[in-house]
Amino acid sequence: MDPKLRRMASSFVALLLLLEQGMFSSFPPPSGPLDRVFQYIDLHQDEFVQTLKEWVAVESDSVQPVPRFRQELFRMMAMAADKLQRLGAGVDSVDLGSQQLPDGQSLPIPPVILAQLGNDPKKTTVCFYGHLDVQSAQQDDGWLTDPYTLTEVDGKLYGRGATDNKGPVLAWINAVSTFRALEQDLPVNIKFILEGMEEAGSVALEELIRKEKDRFFSSVDYLVISDNLWLSRKKPALTYGTRGNSYFMVEVKCRDQDLHSGTFGGILNEPMADLVALLGSLVDSSGHILIPGIYDQVAPITEEEKKMYEAIDLDLEQYQNSSQVEKFLFDTKEEILMHLWRYPSLSIHGIEGAFDEPGIKTVIPGRVTGKFSIRLVPHMNMSVVEKQVKQHLEDVFSKRNSSNQMAISMVVGVQPWIANINDTQYLAAKRAIRTVFGTEPDMIQDGSSIPIAKIFQDIIQKSVMMLPLGAVDDGEHSQNEKINRWNYIEGSKLFAAFFLEMAKLH
Amino acid sequence: MDPKLRRMASSFVALLLLLEQGMFSSFPPPSGPLDRVFQYIDLHQDEFVQTLKEWVAVESDSVQPVPRFRQELFRMMAMAADKLQRLGAGVDSVDLGSQQLPDGQSLPIPPVILAQLGNDPKKTTVCFYGHLDVQSAQQDDGWLTDPYTLTEVDGKLYGRGATDNKGPVLAWINAVSTFRALEQDLPVNIKFILEGMEEAGSVALEELIRKEKDRFFSSVDYLVISDNLWLSRKKPALTYGTRGNSYFMVEVKCRDQDLHSGTFGGILNEPMADLVALLGSLVDSSGHILIPGIYDQVAPITEEEKKMYEAIDLDLEQYQNSSQVEKFLFDTKEEILMHLWRYPSLSIHGIEGAFDEPGIKTVIPGRVTGKFSIRLVPHMNMSVVEKQVKQHLEDVFSKRNSSNQMAISMVVGVQPWIANINDTQYLAAKRAIRTVFGTEPDMIQDGSSIPIAKIFQDIIQKSVMMLPLGAVDDGEHSQNEKINRWNYIEGSKLFAAFFLEMAKLH
Repeated sequence: MDPKLRRMASSFVALLLLLEQGMFSSFPPPSGPLDRVFQYIDLHQDEFVQTLKEWVAVESDSVQPVPRFRQELFRMMAMAADKLQRLGAGVDSVDLGSQQLPDGQSLPIPPVILAQLGNDPKKTTVCFYGHLDVQSAQQDDGWLTDPYTLTEVDGKLYGRGATDNKGPVLAWINAVSTFRALEQDLPVNIKFILEGMEEAGSVALEELIRKEKDRFFSSVDYLVISDNLWLSRKKPALTYGTRGNSYFMVEVKCRDQDLHSGTFGGILNEPMADLVALLGSLVDSSGHILIPGIYDQVAPITEEEKKMYEAIDLDLEQYQNSSQVEKFLFDTKEEILMHLWRYPSLSIHGIEGAFDEPGIKTVIPGRVTGKFSIRLVPHMNMSVVEKQVKQHLEDVFSKRNSSNQMAISMVVGVQPWIANINDTQYLAAKRAIRTVFGTEPDMIQDGSSIPIAKIFQDIIQKSVMMLPLGAVDDGEHSQNEKINRWNYIEGSKLFAAFFLEMAKLH
Repeated sequence: MDPKLRRMASSFVALLLLLEQGMFSSFPPPSGPLDRVFQYIDLHQDEFVQTLKEWVAVESDSVQPVPRFRQELFRMMAMAADKLQRLGAGVDSVDLGSQQLPDGQSLPIPPVILAQLGNDPKKTTVCFYGHLDVQSAQQDDGWLTDPYTLTEVDGKLYGRGATDNKGPVLAWINAVSTFRALEQDLPVNIKFILEGMEEAGSVALEELIRKEKDRFFSSVDYLVISDNLWLSRKKPALTYGTRGNSYFMVEVKCRDQDLHSGTFGGILNEPMADLVALLGSLVDSSGHILIPGIYDQVAPITEEEKKMYEAIDLDLEQYQNSSQVEKFLFDTKEEILMHLWRYPSLSIHGIEGAFDEPGIKTVIPGRVTGKFSIRLVPHMNMSVVEKQVKQHLEDVFSKRNSSNQMAISMVVGVQPWIANINDTQYLAAKRAIRTVFGTEPDMIQDGSSIPIAKIFQDIIQKSVMMLPLGAVDDGEHSQNEKINRWNYIEGSKLFAAFFLEMAKLH
C-alpha cells in the first residue's frame, strides 16, 4: 500500500472507531480471488448468524456434570460432525469413553471431532482447534436475554458460547464453506480438532493428542487456536504467548484438631502465625517477588519487544474503569502489559483450615494450608522455581524456630508458552488482518495459562498461533456473553484471507 | 490441725491419689455440726445420683434452636423450680419473652429461675449461679453410652450436662436439702439464679441482672459460680480470675468482586498480600505481641503470686500429652500457667473472603477480612488496647503505600475478671476445701473469658468466686462428658461446709 493510501486508510479506520457499533465493510476493498469470497460472506451473513443461533441453542454445558447436559454435548458434537461432513470433510468422532466423578457417578465424555478437508501434499496443512462446550448459564444469573437464544441487539449477538467458542469455530467453518460454495479450490489442507470438554478441563484431550501425534497430526504444519479475545474493542490482535503457573500449597501443622484460644493462647507456636509469616515473605508491596533467584531466568527485554508493547492499542483509563480497580501498581500501558505478560507474578489465594466464615470464633486452627501461585514466563523453569520456593520457605520457617511441622508441595505446574512471531503463519495472519481490517494487529500475550497451546507445541512440535476474533468486552464466562456481528463476519473473512496468505507464503 | 495430723493427712491423700477411682470418704473425719451432714450425704448419695440421672435425661440443648429442644429446656427449668419449691424456696420463674433468630424464626427463651431460701438479716446471703442447658450431643458423635442416660462406669457418671453444669447445680441443692432433711438451720441465706441459655450465649441474662440489681440482688453479699473445672484430676481448685478478650476484624479491599490471577496478577496491590503483612506484624514466633505499648498496663508480677503458681498441682508431662501438642513455648509449669492466665496472648483465627476450600483456585480475592483476638489481663484497658491495635495496623498499612482500603473494627470486648482472694468467701471456701479434701486448693485462673463473672462483678459490685467441682478430665462440651461420683458427692459436702464457714466468718 502506498503511503497516501495508508494515510487514507488510517483516517477511515479512525472514523470507523468512532462509530459505536454497526455494520462495517472490509477495508481496503478486496481484490483478486478474495473479492468474491468477501462478497459471498457479506451476502450470506444472515445464514451464518442463523447457524450460530442453532448452535447456541444447544445447552452444551460441560461444567455441570449431569446427564441432561451430557446429552446436549453429544448432540452438539454430532451437529458439528454433520456440518463438516456436508462440506466434504472426512470426519472421525473419537469416543473417549467415560469419566468417573468424585461422587462415584460415571458420565460419558463427548467425542472429539477430528476432521480433514483436502489432502494435497503440495499444500500446507493448517489445523484448527476449537471447543463446542460452554460455561453454565441461567437467565436469572443476570442475563438480559435467554442465554441459549442468540439475540441481536445493536449488532451484538448475545448468547452463551457466542464468543467462547462456538462463534470462532463457525467463522472457520464459514470460511471453508464459502470456498466450497464458490467452487474455489481450498488454498490449504484444513484439519479440525473440536472438543466438548474444554470448560471442564479438556478431559482426556492431551492423551488423545499424544495418540494421534503420528496419525492425524503427522501431516499438520500449523496449529491455530481462536479461543481468546482481542485487547481492544476494535483492533485485532495476534497472541504469541501465555504465562505458565506453579501452584503451591504450604501446610503448617500443630495437631489435627483445632485448639481454643482461651485454653491454649499464649503457650503455643500457633500455625496461623507461622503461615502468615511464610506467606508474608513471598512478595513485597510493590509486587516484587522476594524468593531469591526467582528473576534470574526471566528473559531480558529486547528493543523489538519494547516497540511491540508501544504499538499496542490499550485505552488505559477505560481499562482501569472497567476493571473497577482504584489504582494499578504501574502508570504506563507498557509497564502494565509487561507485568501481566512477560514478568512473573505471585498471588496468595487463601488459606484452608482456618476460620473462614462470617462472625466470630476464638479458635486456634490446628492445621492450616496456605495456597499461592507464581505465574511463569519465559525462560523460567518450573522445577527450578519449585526448588527456589521450597528453599526460601524452609529458610524462613527454620528461622522461626517453630515446633510446628511444615510441608510444601507444588500441586500444579504449567509451563509458559511462547511462539516465534516470525513463523510463516504469524506473517500470513498479519497480512490477512491488514487485508480485512486495514490495520496491524496488536501483538499480545495472555497473562493466564492456556494449556492447549503449550500441549500442541510440546507434543506436535509445530508452530502454534492464537488468532482471536472476539472483542475485549465480549464477556466470556460472564452473564450477557456476546460476539459482535461485525467480529463474527469479518472474522470469517479473516480466516478465508488467512488460508490464501498461507498458500502464498508456502 | 497439728503438724503430726497434717502429715498423716498428706500421706492419706497421697494414698487416695494412687487409687484410680472408687468411693472416697471425707478427710479428715468431720466433727461438730458437719458430722451428721456428711454422713447424711454419704448415706443418700444414690438418691443424689438418681436426681442427676433424671436431670441429665432432659435433652435441654440450647445450642440447636429447634422447638423440640426449647420444650425440653422449659421442662428442665420447671423441674428445677419444683425441686427448689419442695425445699421451701420462694421461686420466681422469670419469663424472658422470645428470641428472633437470623432466619426470621422466633423461639421462646426458657425462664430464668430466681430462688431464695431464708431471709434472715443477721445472716450472710450467698447467691449461686448455674445453668441447666447443655451442649448438643448425639450418641453417634462418638459417645460410648447414650448421652442422655446417666451411666456409671468405674465411679464415673457419664452423661451430657453431668459436669456442665447440672451436677454442680444439684450439688448445691443437695447441700441445702441435707440441712433441710436434718432439720438444721441453714447457716446462710441462699439464693439461686439458674438460666437455660448459657451455651447459647446467655441470651437476655445481663439485662435481667441489671433489672434485678436493686430487687433480687439487693440483699446478696457474695456470688458463687461453679461452672468450670479443676486443673487437676484430684486436687480441688478455686478460680479467682479469667482473661478478657478483644476480637478484631481487619478488612482489606481492592474491589467487591474477586479477580483472576492470570488477568490481574502482577499489576495490583493484592488484598491478601496486604492482609498477610498486617497479620504478620502482630506477634513474633515466641508469642510476644508486637503492638507498641500493649504490655504497658499488664500488672507486674508479685512474690505472693509467684508462690501461688509454684504451689499449683500440674503434671506438665501429662498436660502436654493430653493436649497432643508437640512442644510448648515454655518449659516450666509456672511460665506456662502465667502465659495462659496473667499475660495477654494474640491468636490469628482466620481470613474471611479468601479461597478456603480444598483444591486449587487461581483467584485474587478482592476483599478479605482477617480475624484475630487478644486475651486481656489485669490491668489492660479495652479501649486503650483498641487504640493501640488500630494505630499499629494503620502504621503498618500506611508504610505499604497500598492503593487498597483498610478498615479495622473491634467487634467484641470482654474485660478480664480478677477477684480479691482475701475476700471472706475465698477464705471460707479454702477452709471448706481443707475440711472436705484435706488439702489447700490450687489457686487458679482461666485463660478463657467467662463473661458472667465479670458481669456480676460490674453490675452487682459484690465479691464473685468460681468454685469448681469437676476434675480436669471431665470433658465438658466433648463426647463422653462425665462427673466423678466422688467429685459430685464430695462437692455436695464442700458446699455444705462452705455455708458453715461463711456463717462463722460473718
